[in-house]
Amino acid sequence: MKIWLTMLIATVSVNLAANELKLDNSLAYKLTESLTVEVGARIAGSAADERAVVWAEKNFAALGYDKVWREAFDMPYWQRGAASLTVNAPFHQSLVVTALGGSIATPALGIDSNVVMFDSLEQLKNADTPRVKGKIVFINHSMAKDKEGEFYGQVVGARAQGAVEAAKLGAKAIIIRSVGTSLNRFAHTGVMRYSDNVARIPAAAISVPDAIQLEKMLALQPNLTLQLTMQNKLPGIVKSHNVIAEITGSKRPDEIVLISAHLDSWDQGTGALDDGAGVGLVMAVGALIKQQGQPERTIRVVLFGNEEGGLLGAKAYAAKHAANMDKHVFASESDFGADRVWRLDSGVGEKSLAFIAELQQKLAHLDISLGNNNASGGPDVSVIKALGVPVVTLLQDGTDYFDYHHTANDTFDKVNAEALAQNLAAWLITTKAVANSQVDLRQ
Amino acid sequence: MKIWLTMLIATVSVNLAANELKLDNSLAYKLTESLTVEVGARIAGSAADERAVVWAEKNFAALGYDKVWREAFDMPYWQRGAASLTVNAPFHQSLVVTALGGSIATPALGIDSNVVMFDSLEQLKNADTPRVKGKIVFINHSMAKDKEGEFYGQVVGARAQGAVEAAKLGAKAIIIRSVGTSLNRFAHTGVMRYSDNVARIPAAAISVPDAIQLEKMLALQPNLTLQLTMQNKLPGIVKSHNVIAEITGSKRPDEIVLISAHLDSWDQGTGALDDGAGVGLVMAVGALIKQQGQPERTIRVVLFGNEEGGLLGAKAYAAKHAANMDKHVFASESDFGADRVWRLDSGVGEKSLAFIAELQQKLAHLDISLGNNNASGGPDVSVIKALGVPVVTLLQDGTDYFDYHHTANDTFDKVNAEALAQNLAAWLITTKAVANSQVDLRQ
Ligand SMILES: [Zn+2]
Ligand SMILES: [Zn+2]
Ligand SMILES: [Zn+2]
Ligand SMILES: [Zn+2]
Repeated sequence: MKIWLTMLIATVSVNLAANELKLDNSLAYKLTESLTVEVGARIAGSAADERAVVWAEKNFAALGYDKVWREAFDMPYWQRGAASLTVNAPFHQSLVVTALGGSIATPALGIDSNVVMFDSLEQLKNADTPRVKGKIVFINHSMAKDKEGEFYGQVVGARAQGAVEAAKLGAKAIIIRSVGTSLNRFAHTGVMRYSDNVARIPAAAISVPDAIQLEKMLALQPNLTLQLTMQNKLPGIVKSHNVIAEITGSKRPDEIVLISAHLDSWDQGTGALDDGAGVGLVMAVGALIKQQGQPERTIRVVLFGNEEGGLLGAKAYAAKHAANMDKHVFASESDFGADRVWRLDSGVGEKSLAFIAELQQKLAHLDISLGNNNASGGPDVSVIKALGVPVVTLLQDGTDYFDYHHTANDTFDKVNAEALAQNLAAWLITTKAVANSQVDLRQ
Repeated sequence: MKIWLTMLIATVSVNLAANELKLDNSLAYKLTESLTVEVGARIAGSAADERAVVWAEKNFAALGYDKVWREAFDMPYWQRGAASLTVNAPFHQSLVVTALGGSIATPALGIDSNVVMFDSLEQLKNADTPRVKGKIVFINHSMAKDKEGEFYGQVVGARAQGAVEAAKLGAKAIIIRSVGTSLNRFAHTGVMRYSDNVARIPAAAISVPDAIQLEKMLALQPNLTLQLTMQNKLPGIVKSHNVIAEITGSKRPDEIVLISAHLDSWDQGTGALDDGAGVGLVMAVGALIKQQGQPERTIRVVLFGNEEGGLLGAKAYAAKHAANMDKHVFASESDFGADRVWRLDSGVGEKSLAFIAELQQKLAHLDISLGNNNASGGPDVSVIKALGVPVVTLLQDGTDYFDYHHTANDTFDKVNAEALAQNLAAWLITTKAVANSQVDLRQ
């Protein structure tokens, strides 16, 4: 048994509707299991999203949180429809395709067109209109693996902005090589954006093996045509929710230590790595700290809604709590899978770096090193960091994260119980250190 | 460079319609690429199957084979339709499902029923009718990995016979945990059988992660119901073909050294490991041997049709060539992926074991050891082995084969060029040894 397991005193059992949850170092794992099995995929705005909100409220209460509530916000609802991508003669065959989140549908009969391939979004931006006009753009940008997920930032532009750039040059549709690092034949979804001044065209991703296959086909037959059909729907504005729960501070209850994850997931997998594990983790942290006595500051756990559609829950939270932002003494989010934490990054005032260095000493036995002071705190938390809230990132090993991210393959069996317990230990140490101190991390 | 690469003299280029094929140790790999890119999935009886037959004829001719022909046979055509499997309230979510080959469709509105889970086909066989009647049977038999693929034989019964056994007890449908060894979320298809005296019920497979998920759900809610819909079609009897090509023997042309693979594949992947690599391999063997001069015996390369539906091409071949079976001096098939050959098994007469032992000596530098004398020769070849034809199996490392087998993930990127070149070296040595000898392997 690892040293860090011994810090948890496992005694209380919480009997929930379906699962028996123990207040021990398996709690994050068990909560992740419960969310993914009992709710599963939960795209923002859907009935499953609402079931996830109810699940979260119920479990926060059962775990002994002092306060639990939801905060509604409006959002445009997007529903994936059936999608197909067929290579026409002479290589007649189907490719594995999925709509990008937010994409419009194709006409009912689909789009049948020649293809023009680019190696990157940059290359597309530099193309001439005659090369692109009337065609399906194919961005075939491959993504390498790395621990920090740096390459994601280099490739994801094709997904987010590809449709706008392709439409500017007159393309009929865009397909991208999945923003992912695995040769498994899953198409990775993820949000894409339109621009008010540019025609909206359908946008989809094909799996990495299909991108490799299509590249080979185009080398043999540059005049190949593809048939793309997608039946997505945009039913309009609906409500989604952030779910918030607190362990009330014993000495400085108005000072908020915010820890978070996002409750929504894409609709293809069960959102285990993205971000069920984060949800299980931060829910467990508050419960396990309370078990050892109330913290001095209030621990607020926020499960943001609709992170995937563009941080909509985080933006709603920031707007609603703007007047109280100075009472947020700390914020952090777990949203990078379930592998081990290996580095502590911060985004705090210069004078607080000593506190961060001390914190890293407390985390060293978990093999967590000291990183930089440029942390975002996580995607949702970056929104309140921009309003001046100090943050840390307990950076996880993301080497394998983009094998599963935004695919049907993001399921609970991919969560490593031991690695998640290491995360839990790191989050407990970090959250308690801040919640039981008077440090002003803005300084 | 490995020693075994030096045995091939690479000079001649064959300019085919689309690809440039070199007569060197990459030939098997390049042919596999050509088949999977230009034809792709090719379920027996389909238009793609016919395209594969044309592809094979054209490439055999271009590779310099002396004779090329096709032999037709009748077969029942089966077409996969859309399938869905939904868990009803309270855990409303979709599972990844695929029809088993040969399964009937469900009624248009689907089958909505309780579930009864069994750990194995044996356990189902021992069940009482009241436990099963009116329900969807779920066989949740997990499969372990091994080099020889032994576990496949232990688990595949659930797929082949599950529908009959479930229907005997009054089940409405059967779903099985995929016969596969990966946690990737692909459902593995494969052939299933009905019995004339037993009601036909729909049969499907769910992915391994979904089987794990469903087991967890049933533990929480034993009264859970599932909704299964499948739209498969059985359009009737159509023609498919074996494609045969020969390098004519210089001294004993009537003596046939048969090497083979199967041309058809399931419809989900591009049939790269099963059995595109085998096709590329045996097509390359004849061409490369001819490059070095005619063999003494005739080398006959047979690409069997419809292996997947129940060895239908092999049975047609055996029937058509029954009178000539005594002239088949040897047969072997490659149909276990594209990983390295590690063992030489035989199915020959006792007196011929010395020849086999000598052959193994020639293969030893490729890390191929001597195995047993119980080889089947391969699935199609087992049909003619039963008629007295001597066989060998160049046994491949099957450890990872059932990760991909019969899934959408069986694509060309999974083929390891170096391992396939090692196969090619082993097959060249073996085929030449038999074709240039007078050994009677029946003795
Ligand atoms: Zn996320
Ligand atoms: Zn995400
Ligand atoms: Zn096969
Ligand atoms: Zn097969």
